[in-house]
Amino acid sequence: MSGRSVDTIGVVLFERFELLDVFGPVEILGHLKNALRIVMVGPAAGLVASAQGQAVVAESGRDDCPPLDGLLVPGGIGTRTEVDDASLLAWLRERAKAASLVMSVCTGAALLARAGVLDGRRATSNKRAFDWVVEQGPAVEWVRRARWVHDGHFWTSSGISAGIDMTLALVAERFGRDFAEQVSRRLEYTWHRDAADDPFV
Amino acid sequence: MSGRSVDTIGVVLFERFELLDVFGPVEILGHLKNALRIVMVGPAAGLVASAQGQAVVAESGRDDCPPLDGLLVPGGIGTRTEVDDASLLAWLRERAKAASLVMSVCTGAALLARAGVLDGRRATSNKRAFDWVVEQGPAVEWVRRARWVHDGHFWTSSGISAGIDMTLALVAERFGRDFAEQVSRRLEYTWHRDAADDPFV
Repeated sequence: MSGRSVDTIGVVLFERFELLDVFGPVEILGHLKNALRIVMVGPAAGLVASAQGQAVVAESGRDDCPPLDGLLVPGGIGTRTEVDDASLLAWLRERAKAASLVMSVCTGAALLARAGVLDGRRATSNKRAFDWVVEQGPAVEWVRRARWVHDGHFWTSSGISAGIDMTLALVAERFGRDFAEQVSRRLEYTWHRDAADDPFV
Repeated sequence: MSGRSVDTIGVVLFERFELLDVFGPVEILGHLKNALRIVMVGPAAGLVASAQGQAVVAESGRDDCPPLDGLLVPGGIGTRTEVDDASLLAWLRERAKAASLVMSVCTGAALLARAGVLDGRRATSNKRAFDWVVEQGPAVEWVRRARWVHDGHFWTSSGISAGIDMTLALVAERFGRDFAEQVSRRLEYTWHRDAADDPFV
């Protein structure tokens, strides 16, 4: 993802994903319509039910999805079973290799960790599930006190607010601080700009 | 909506609704699964595209939707044309009469105002579109400096953060402050508890 070309970000959907882990970042990234395209990727094309029950349309399945420049992996109670889905993990591993941006919100980090994608990287997750997430990736350098962690092209965040805050920080890094400030003002979103400010630790 | 019975909240979807205006409050209300049922209501049952492009499933159309105890009306660029949709306005008027809870986020207030539902009530909307929203309801007592406004069973909020903050305040009022605090901690959402604290005015 850069200010120059149209990149494709795949949002990884699975049964019982957390609604705001997806729609917080997607709302922010939606302001970059000229610079990127968002594709909702389900196990197969079609409806995927969130943890809250509401269903969302996956335009693409994992097997038929276009090349992805970026990945966004949400959390949610569904991650508890998805960490054992070998085909999802293999897909994440393969797609993360080709991507220049890998993001997770909440327990989405558990899926990336279990796939080995975060090995040797600094990363975080939400605090309520932290110990379980850590178990999914013993070779990850977990950071407990962090709203989000940015290591190379890996961006991992803790809870709901943090996912939105992190996405704005990513926009600031790649498209300029002024643009990110504009987006947060336009949405009237109270942006927490400090990655280390984590009141939930 | 009370702590006692299972109530039905209708989320009013229309083309180009703002994603987070819907999924912020729905994420919070999703924690009250035992106390309430959320129904996504579109113009007709089927897919409705958000302002950001992502499509959501409306389980019900306006004509075939069940009795609703509550309404949640999101904003989004789509409101600019929906304010002229006489059949939507008539439906809102009729359903609001029967409801014991009417909520809006952002320019959702413009739809309620245009339908006459907010006449004589105190209400707010987001600040970027405020003047336009005010024009939609000359008989509404508009409050410019407010994160959200609570007048009787009418709850109207300004922007994206405010919609979530207001929903937590509603949960606090109807299900207890402790429960609302629990939900915000569980989601790791930084709750802005003061309805008058509006940095975007």
